[in-house]
Amino acid sequence: MPCYSSDKLNALVKEAKKYTAQGKVADYIPALKKENPHDLSAAIFHPDGRCISAGDVDQKITLQSISKVLTLALALMDYGEEQVFEKVGYEPTGDPFNSIVKLELYNPSKPLNPMINAGALAVTSMIKGETIENRLERILDFVQKLAGDRKIGYSQEVADSEFKTAYLNRALCYFMMEHGIIEEEVEGLLELYTKQCAIEMTCLDLARIGLVFAMDGADPFTKEPLIPRDIVRVCKTFMVTCGMYNAAGEFAVRIGIPAKSGVSGGIMGVVPNRFGIGIFGPALDEKGNSIAGLKLLEMLSEKYSLSIF
Amino acid sequence: MPCYSSDKLNALVKEAKKYTAQGKVADYIPALKKENPHDLSAAIFHPDGRCISAGDVDQKITLQSISKVLTLALALMDYGEEQVFEKVGYEPTGDPFNSIVKLELYNPSKPLNPMINAGALAVTSMIKGETIENRLERILDFVQKLAGDRKIGYSQEVADSEFKTAYLNRALCYFMMEHGIIEEEVEGLLELYTKQCAIEMTCLDLARIGLVFAMDGADPFTKEPLIPRDIVRVCKTFMVTCGMYNAAGEFAVRIGIPAKSGVSGGIMGVVPNRFGIGIFGPALDEKGNSIAGLKLLEMLSEKYSLSIF
Amino acid sequence: MPCYSSDKLNALVKEAKKYTAQGKVADYIPALKKENPHDLSAAIFHPDGRCISAGDVDQKITLQSISKVLTLALALMDYGEEQVFEKVGYEPTGDPFNSIVKLELYNPSKPLNPMINAGALAVTSMIKGETIENRLERILDFVQKLAGDRKIGYSQEVADSEFKTAYLNRALCYFMMEHGIIEEEVEGLLELYTKQCAIEMTCLDLARIGLVFAMDGADPFTKEPLIPRDIVRVCKTFMVTCGMYNAAGEFAVRIGIPAKSGVSGGIMGVVPNRFGIGIFGPALDEKGNSIAGLKLLEMLSEKYSLSIF
Amino acid sequence: MPCYSSDKLNALVKEAKKYTAQGKVADYIPALKKENPHDLSAAIFHPDGRCISAGDVDQKITLQSISKVLTLALALMDYGEEQVFEKVGYEPTGDPFNSIVKLELYNPSKPLNPMINAGALAVTSMIKGETIENRLERILDFVQKLAGDRKIGYSQEVADSEFKTAYLNRALCYFMMEHGIIEEEVEGLLELYTKQCAIEMTCLDLARIGLVFAMDGADPFTKEPLIPRDIVRVCKTFMVTCGMYNAAGEFAVRIGIPAKSGVSGGIMGVVPNRFGIGIFGPALDEKGNSIAGLKLLEMLSEKYSLSIF
Repeated sequence: MPCYSSDKLNALVKEAKKYTAQGKVADYIPALKKENPHDLSAAIFHPDGRCISAGDVDQKITLQSISKVLTLALALMDYGEEQVFEKVGYEPTGDPFNSIVKLELYNPSKPLNPMINAGALAVTSMIKGETIENRLERILDFVQKLAGDRKIGYSQEVADSEFKTAYLNRALCYFMMEHGIIEEEVEGLLELYTKQCAIEMTCLDLARIGLVFAMDGADPFTKEPLIPRDIVRVCKTFMVTCGMYNAAGEFAVRIGIPAKSGVSGGIMGVVPNRFGIGIFGPALDEKGNSIAGLKLLEMLSEKYSLSIF
Repeated sequence: MPCYSSDKLNALVKEAKKYTAQGKVADYIPALKKENPHDLSAAIFHPDGRCISAGDVDQKITLQSISKVLTLALALMDYGEEQVFEKVGYEPTGDPFNSIVKLELYNPSKPLNPMINAGALAVTSMIKGETIENRLERILDFVQKLAGDRKIGYSQEVADSEFKTAYLNRALCYFMMEHGIIEEEVEGLLELYTKQCAIEMTCLDLARIGLVFAMDGADPFTKEPLIPRDIVRVCKTFMVTCGMYNAAGEFAVRIGIPAKSGVSGGIMGVVPNRFGIGIFGPALDEKGNSIAGLKLLEMLSEKYSLSIF
Repeated sequence: MPCYSSDKLNALVKEAKKYTAQGKVADYIPALKKENPHDLSAAIFHPDGRCISAGDVDQKITLQSISKVLTLALALMDYGEEQVFEKVGYEPTGDPFNSIVKLELYNPSKPLNPMINAGALAVTSMIKGETIENRLERILDFVQKLAGDRKIGYSQEVADSEFKTAYLNRALCYFMMEHGIIEEEVEGLLELYTKQCAIEMTCLDLARIGLVFAMDGADPFTKEPLIPRDIVRVCKTFMVTCGMYNAAGEFAVRIGIPAKSGVSGGIMGVVPNRFGIGIFGPALDEKGNSIAGLKLLEMLSEKYSLSIF
Repeated sequence: MPCYSSDKLNALVKEAKKYTAQGKVADYIPALKKENPHDLSAAIFHPDGRCISAGDVDQKITLQSISKVLTLALALMDYGEEQVFEKVGYEPTGDPFNSIVKLELYNPSKPLNPMINAGALAVTSMIKGETIENRLERILDFVQKLAGDRKIGYSQEVADSEFKTAYLNRALCYFMMEHGIIEEEVEGLLELYTKQCAIEMTCLDLARIGLVFAMDGADPFTKEPLIPRDIVRVCKTFMVTCGMYNAAGEFAVRIGIPAKSGVSGGIMGVVPNRFGIGIFGPALDEKGNSIAGLKLLEMLSEKYSLSIF
């Protein structure tokens, strides 16, 4: 599907790009360090098929935490709300995404929500399938359908790099095993989780997936229901309350678009009934969100009144 | 303004009332203990002036934490976003509303958001006025305008009762004085805060105020702008991310109506562009929200698709 | 009683004094800021009446946290172990002396030990007497007896200075009122507590009090029992496990002398059956202990094998 | 070496045994569940070779946390204080032995002391040796020397049982890897650590090791120095400040004997210059210490004035 460069969007991207100087590329995942901090690209996908873009939209990015929304949707489709929310809570938290403190202090121990690492690991452990490979295939298949792009795969290099250094995630997993939240072998779960995080796509694909959420779960072209409407609603809610790490509250107030960010610098935005947004800008602010990506969304939200509030 | 009893609403209220048996009336504020735990009343106010109700809508309730949204609006009108959010953050927190832990653990010390007690106290300390009396008058005047009811006052008995036993709030205030977040004399601030919490109205008034927020800040009848639209947006966002104590996340997922609850059992709901809701049901769940009130909102949201998500 | 300057002690003090450059005078209590950071003086009192000293031993210092041991002894004499340890625990804590976090996180809420501020405030609230004045007189009388010096009083200036800015202590008190640990009016308690902390004496007096503890509670000259032996044992134990703020563990390992420090820069040391030590060195390390005082005790402990371990 | 049953000790053991009814056997390590909760045995070893005992002194117990003192001694002998205390702190903590919270909240991340699990794991990771087997042999060799018993080994069953379910310890290890405190492969370290915890001996052996610490590190019979005196002093200090989990403070106040307990129900006591104590009583109090063992030590301490304070 072609996507046309837009002068208006180019102008906004150019303006937002200035902020890249104040951020820096994630360095705790070795393979991400190579990105150019000054990159910023964006795509906007409309339900009628119109797509506009700015910047290098062929560049591939890994989903990282953006994948948490997609596995949440899949787990909800596999098990239903009741079972999923037995394992993971609904509440936003002011703590960092990789914090372990509340798992110990809260009784019974339970990850506060599915967007922090602990919660996302618990959600991935619920994805059905007989082997790690099967489960990964199911995730990939689901993502490919959402993006309408069967060529989407994952970066073995990024997955390997994360897998090796995922000490905090291992700590979270073992802590949750102690409390019966995770019941499978940790190394396998981490393999699956790091591959899920390493799923690779362009910001066009990202915008296309955002559009599915914006259209209540329907494929924008075939109208086929890819995600039930109720599950879309749950996912959008978490994007608002917990989508931008521990800056979600400020994002909701200032920008108000259901969105999910990843430390790769990607952001998927959902403007209900209007369009999907995909952004890639690897320079991050200190909370782990794309610094220029946030700025771009802020400008878009103000200019076009995109806040849901 | 008359408000008509509605069969449909009566039926829902009757259904929701069953849940009162599982909750209990707040006992930490002595004056609230007298309420009948089995009460449940509700009013819905439409922009065209239609008002429907169920239950005893003449009964007066105190605002308690519902007042936090109103003083936030007033402080934002007094100072603007930038200054207010220097003193108080934007982020939801999984902690209880009266928690002091994060004030110590976060550096610099700052209440996470204006809906927890620490943040609300910091907001009230920003309300302009030369004396405690002036400041209280300004708050009352603002609330009266929003409700279109000049007779609204506060319950001296409830205010006195809370003032005497407000030890945790005193602890929060002194902690914030240490860190420069509050700079005025604590006993005066607490007098103001407990009177603000003791402002008394019916659930009709509450629904009427909810309607103002639903109509982007305009008086529903005169169309006079009572609160700037941008400030309304900020307030609605906090109602979604932090309005129901540490059950806000679950409320957003399951119900999705911007709302604010108080330990008196009141809930103010805002259905954007449609109507305002006022509920009174003093039996609380373990997180401090009206147990039957939540149930009623859940039924309303499902039946009439009220979720903003 | 005369105290003779000692060449050996002078040499050690001179050596230890070098470390004053790395510390700084407490600045959170305004009246303490005036001290000369390069001061260091010390006195050692033997049971046979011999006293040796080095530095300006006429200089007066306020007890600050050193007073916590003395009020603990008095409260134990007033009520016995059982009642005292209903209000306050026995356990050391790795947290700073003014931390409020554990009061909230532990259930039931209780200060972990009598040497942190919360615990010391709870202990002072147990000191018997009909008025604040009576209770202060009882504390002063007790301290005067221990030091054998009827002229000991408190610094009104330091007490006033601390009283005005004691916001954190007020927060701790109100938090404890909420939980029934403190039951008296907070401002009165704080007046008493800040005066107790402002009790003023020389390092000779301090060494003399240390000697009483070293002699199992007996007046070193009259042999009159001033503190029961069992209570002395309890106090010495807390000096070892919690006497040096959150550096108590390291102090026990490296130095091993029961001791209590104050943010004035004073340290009282107890070498069981041998002597009492009084030190004054206002430059503090980052944990609030006299930096040169610690060094001096370390040198003394090594040279004369003073560790109890 | 023979050990004679003592009427006096038998009487005390009989008295203390009554308290077993209030405790329960550790159930989180499956292999420990089999112990008889009503057991209580004790041995006291004097420097002149006299040994008195009560109860079934042939019964073998695993060291569990008691081993933490022994590996601390060995690591200090391998590396010296400075290097060991770069990895692990000196400070007691009011938190449970298996808590992970402070590792996240303290900056830089570092286990507070070598007696909590995190600290003990960091210490074991410092034990020198080319392979896990070598390192285990070194630990066993050291323990055998201390006990004067070359037949001491470990229980493969207990080690296996703990290894399989050591999820919290795995979480602690991975958290510490993230922060560079542990740098070796976690599964190997846990194998070593669980085997160290599963070292098996009688309470006679335990008393004999306690005696070595009581005699400043010398073999009680050959007088050969087994542990340098300075390291013994460090170990005894930690036994006092952190030896009884988060009941160490109360134990120091009420009993005052350097001691270390394990969840097997073992306690090793050290009465400096007098004797060593070994106790086995598997019923634990809620903090993980042998409930009757504590009572026995309390009676011994009172009767024979054993407190070091």
